[in-house]
Amino acid sequence: MIYIGVDLGGTNIAVGLVSESGTILRKGETPTLLERGPIPIIQDMGRLALKLLEDVGLTVDDVRAVGVGVPGVVNSETGAIAFCPNLRWHNVDLIPILQEIIEKPIYIENDGTVAGLAESVAGASKGVKNSIFLTLGTGIGGGIVIDRKIYSGTHHVGSELGHMVIKFDGRECGCGFRGCWEQYASATALIRMGREAATAQPNSAILRLAGGDLEKIEAKTVIDAAREGDPEALAVYDEYIGYLAIGILNLINSFDPEIICLGGGLSRAGEFLLNPLREKLKPMIFYKDLPYASIKLATLGNDAGIIGAAMLGR
Amino acid sequence: MIYIGVDLGGTNIAVGLVSESGTILRKGETPTLLERGPIPIIQDMGRLALKLLEDVGLTVDDVRAVGVGVPGVVNSETGAIAFCPNLRWHNVDLIPILQEIIEKPIYIENDGTVAGLAESVAGASKGVKNSIFLTLGTGIGGGIVIDRKIYSGTHHVGSELGHMVIKFDGRECGCGFRGCWEQYASATALIRMGREAATAQPNSAILRLAGGDLEKIEAKTVIDAAREGDPEALAVYDEYIGYLAIGILNLINSFDPEIICLGGGLSRAGEFLLNPLREKLKPMIFYKDLPYASIKLATLGNDAGIIGAAMLGR
Repeated sequence: MIYIGVDLGGTNIAVGLVSESGTILRKGETPTLLERGPIPIIQDMGRLALKLLEDVGLTVDDVRAVGVGVPGVVNSETGAIAFCPNLRWHNVDLIPILQEIIEKPIYIENDGTVAGLAESVAGASKGVKNSIFLTLGTGIGGGIVIDRKIYSGTHHVGSELGHMVIKFDGRECGCGFRGCWEQYASATALIRMGREAATAQPNSAILRLAGGDLEKIEAKTVIDAAREGDPEALAVYDEYIGYLAIGILNLINSFDPEIICLGGGLSRAGEFLLNPLREKLKPMIFYKDLPYASIKLATLGNDAGIIGAAMLGR
Repeated sequence: MIYIGVDLGGTNIAVGLVSESGTILRKGETPTLLERGPIPIIQDMGRLALKLLEDVGLTVDDVRAVGVGVPGVVNSETGAIAFCPNLRWHNVDLIPILQEIIEKPIYIENDGTVAGLAESVAGASKGVKNSIFLTLGTGIGGGIVIDRKIYSGTHHVGSELGHMVIKFDGRECGCGFRGCWEQYASATALIRMGREAATAQPNSAILRLAGGDLEKIEAKTVIDAAREGDPEALAVYDEYIGYLAIGILNLINSFDPEIICLGGGLSRAGEFLLNPLREKLKPMIFYKDLPYASIKLATLGNDAGIIGAAMLGR
């Protein structure tokens, strides 16, 4: 038996056939084309899954379950997708539409949660009892695994870790409140800080590496300039790492997981991210003689969405 | 069969005989006398338990297990009490000392965690799957229940919810870092804010209710002055409630529990605490159309320590 995993994004729908152990047997993608609205998008998930099955000579009878990771929250009372801000979806009842094409049990979860499950089944936190996965991208997404199972709270709105307030009365956030972690430690935050630094110091390598165009400064631009030793970039990066460390400290002081693993675009900085982060974190820890979470890089990259969604049905 | 629960505090050792359902059958206490050091204190726990058993005509054979709640952390690798800051205990191996007196299975946990378990077995969050208990006292203690079981993390240092940073670069904290929630939302914080307000505005009812003595301002003084409608007290209390709400928001956005229940001295303010807190929290919530945690008062009071400790062995 195999599992189908669907990773629904604003740009593409990625679908994969996944084995019991979390290996992708075959995958494919198709453009989301958001403007079509939910129904044809959901139908495309099913059609792509059927095509992949056909490609490898399997049928729906070989499928145990279908899982879908969505960039939003599921209403735990109705099973519908309650709210996907980036897709502008409200109360979309995905299951019956997809089941018309694939008549199998269907599970839906938040995409950060799903990626965390994937890392805990087949990635950086494989086999670990309690772990937290963080995506450092446009925002900060979280996936919590407790006792080897997804933990998404009572009303399926848990693990919104990017909206943990770390700065009282701080920057306004898209969630409607202020001072949220993702305003300081997402890739978007690093870009903003890089642009501010490059505006204040036009001689900075940050601006040079962006070809002199402020708008072209990305998170990678700041990181590359910091790697070169550019003082403005180093100052920005150090500040960024400090914010990142504080949110991680909060997760350690509340969840005390065995592993916290970092994914998303920013995690591609690798050791250049991990080493200073670990250094910043060390003096912040309360019980200095006791072990605390290892900070690691996620290993599954973009496949985490497909694998984790598939594993929802396991 | 019955359970013995021990609540170890800096002033008293409280011991109780507890039924399977979490009812205290008999309880007693004896002064801790910290200066004696750990061994006689631990022996007193055992002796008091034996005396209570004798009082009700039971023996050690009727006891299934003993649980001890300590104001600190347990080393999950050795089973020893790793660190109790207020008792100044480091690496105390309680189990063998207590087992010399009562030869039964012995369980140790953090006192906040234990009180959370008690509320989830017999109190405000009875029967609820996921809940968080907070003590608003000298600091802020936390007890997390997930899937009807205590959750204290991988290394037993979880649920240090008072050390969640809510104010970047904020006030120094006893944990060695800065900006922790308990610096803003514990009873100690409310007292500090009340004293500051009374110093700035000596005409405030806060100072009058403290008999004109700044040192006599307690959390209750500020609350009583706010109930009277004193403008300084109302401003301080409003600020305090704001800080309390932010930490609770963080717990909702990460744990999404069904119930958050408030214990500790400050919770005695009752509805005068709950009502403004719920009002402050409402606009902070991310997914405004979805249900989120109910905020309730703890119901077991000081007995939570004994009941929860006893329930560790269940």
